[in-house]
Amino acid sequence: MASSSFSAAASAATATISSSHRHQSLLLTKPFTHNSVLFKQPITLTTAPSLRPLKLRASSSSSVAPLDKTAAAVAAAPPPFPDFDFNAYMLTKAALVNAALDQSIPLARPLKIHEAMRYSLLAGGKRVRPVLCLAACEMVGGDQSLALPMACATEMVHTMSLIHDDLPCMDDDDLRRGLPTSHKKYGEDTAILAGDALLSLSFEHVAARTPSTVSPDRVVRAIAELGSAVGSAGLVAGQIVDIASEGDVDVTLEDLEYIHIHKTARLLEAAVVCGAILGGADDESVEKVRRYALRVGLLFQVVDDILDVTRSSEELGKTAGKDLASDKATYPKLLGLDGARRFAGELVGQACEELAGFDPVKAAPLYHFANYIATRQN
Amino acid sequence: MASSSFSAAASAATATISSSHRHQSLLLTKPFTHNSVLFKQPITLTTAPSLRPLKLRASSSSSVAPLDKTAAAVAAAPPPFPDFDFNAYMLTKAALVNAALDQSIPLARPLKIHEAMRYSLLAGGKRVRPVLCLAACEMVGGDQSLALPMACATEMVHTMSLIHDDLPCMDDDDLRRGLPTSHKKYGEDTAILAGDALLSLSFEHVAARTPSTVSPDRVVRAIAELGSAVGSAGLVAGQIVDIASEGDVDVTLEDLEYIHIHKTARLLEAAVVCGAILGGADDESVEKVRRYALRVGLLFQVVDDILDVTRSSEELGKTAGKDLASDKATYPKLLGLDGARRFAGELVGQACEELAGFDPVKAAPLYHFANYIATRQN
Repeated sequence: MASSSFSAAASAATATISSSHRHQSLLLTKPFTHNSVLFKQPITLTTAPSLRPLKLRASSSSSVAPLDKTAAAVAAAPPPFPDFDFNAYMLTKAALVNAALDQSIPLARPLKIHEAMRYSLLAGGKRVRPVLCLAACEMVGGDQSLALPMACATEMVHTMSLIHDDLPCMDDDDLRRGLPTSHKKYGEDTAILAGDALLSLSFEHVAARTPSTVSPDRVVRAIAELGSAVGSAGLVAGQIVDIASEGDVDVTLEDLEYIHIHKTARLLEAAVVCGAILGGADDESVEKVRRYALRVGLLFQVVDDILDVTRSSEELGKTAGKDLASDKATYPKLLGLDGARRFAGELVGQACEELAGFDPVKAAPLYHFANYIATRQN
Repeated sequence: MASSSFSAAASAATATISSSHRHQSLLLTKPFTHNSVLFKQPITLTTAPSLRPLKLRASSSSSVAPLDKTAAAVAAAPPPFPDFDFNAYMLTKAALVNAALDQSIPLARPLKIHEAMRYSLLAGGKRVRPVLCLAACEMVGGDQSLALPMACATEMVHTMSLIHDDLPCMDDDDLRRGLPTSHKKYGEDTAILAGDALLSLSFEHVAARTPSTVSPDRVVRAIAELGSAVGSAGLVAGQIVDIASEGDVDVTLEDLEYIHIHKTARLLEAAVVCGAILGGADDESVEKVRRYALRVGLLFQVVDDILDVTRSSEELGKTAGKDLASDKATYPKLLGLDGARRFAGELVGQACEELAGFDPVKAAPLYHFANYIATRQN
């Protein structure tokens, strides 16, 4: 059930209304405006996004108001803050997260299980989910320490999903980030148990380690959010539908959206929403960052699919054209390349719109992250 | 990592000090007394249990004060309450739990994963952990509704452990409770995902469904307890050591204790402790029920091992003498039959002693449960 790695061939989503009631909050009910003084290069949409009372979904029909290429290009423009070093921000936060993850699992007895847990958890990666969790916490005025255990928990869940997804009975992968996968190194039994232990620890860690200055009712809310993102309405749901869709040439846009939103966007959503909850956000702000996160999750996959058909293998650092070769359902295949580009532009604009009401300095990391996803070239 | 089924060939434990600090609370620091008016057949120990400042552990040395057979026999005597129908109590509570479990996982889409989760979760069993959770909640004065989501969560965790433990790379079992195991019915991938989803749901269910009349800080504490019982200091730890010990003829009493306390006693402990926490218990009461639960968990395995060598296959309803035939480490093997019997008697006495300070009427279910474990004949 691996949620996608943002640094590898991964999945994301367009927004569909899941069975979870919360996704009805994905409504986009007002035209995009962007009046923050800090957003010096506003993402101006030439047409207001259409009102979709129940769904936000890519569509090949004309019911989705198209964004012209200029708008998409502006939306995907490099970050407009010369005084904000996004890469340095990501690296600084990731270092903090890595140190906390290292401490979260001491090399205790039984050694083998703790070694296996640490092997996969500390294998690197951009720590996108934890960093977004901390960024959301700080955006709403909380100190990042309030969300650090939850930030670690999102990475534990992500790692669990990678370990189990790599198993022979699932994707049967031998390598992960250039190293042997957990089951290749430790055996299938230990790999399964390491995933189970990481999943269990994620919840325990939040419950036991979140600073007592956070109101316990916020901790409880955050734990419920995290659980919802993992189980049969989250990662597991995405993986089970993905498995069922394998080799099916009749995968619809709806199927594609379902898989990607559950495999990628839900955990991203939990990271950002939980960061906001633990940081003290009011309900309105929580729902804003929820919409932001789901759109960024969707954006990731749309861009991933576009890059697969527009970039060379050298540029991507991985095999290009794989989707086309395998006749896999992708956004360019189902929407056309221009349609996919329009949808990406729409998503990044809508994501950033959700940040408009926050302190622009504090919102800068999330703003830049959306643009980073939109503009990445590999 | 299956925690033992109390209705099948299962494991339990003697208490050992795990790496978890909490097990230092297993100290037995005063002689057994049993002065409740309701406990009409007091469990009189002929010698006071020895003081063991760091460990409660079966020992083949004379340092463990032996209980004579009479004491063990009295300890294992039938429940002394003519007006308390233990079987009816168990059945009534189990029915309540079954209804709640049924509601906890609607048959939603994606159908396959929810079917698989329900298939294993609703396959029957005595619901020992949930019933003990409710009993502990009521014993400390709480309404059972406060602990019902946690009660369900303990069964979800138990079911997850059975599903994953049955997998080909673990115990490779085809049947569970007379039905095909999850992976035989749904495939390995779905079985792994169903376990993952059940584990995730267990935490989410407690966080989202515990009545708001429970103070959120108690919910957070309970979630931390549950997590600790599952992960690398709980079920997973027991399973990984069990796997490593397979075929090893040099398994020590310490190894045996470690495996059983982690595979069985820790989840039983979490069920009872969480029930008490959610029911409003003070810290002292929580620690009392913790000691009770660990001793009952230990008791189960000692009795299981004794039955294996003293009962026929017909009496057990399963193959007798299996442990002897496989030269498996057991309490009778390591302590001698009399030593194992003495230890069982000691454990049931110590477990019931922890209940002495509670309202005897409310404590009756836990008292009878300990005796049920001690006196079972199959």
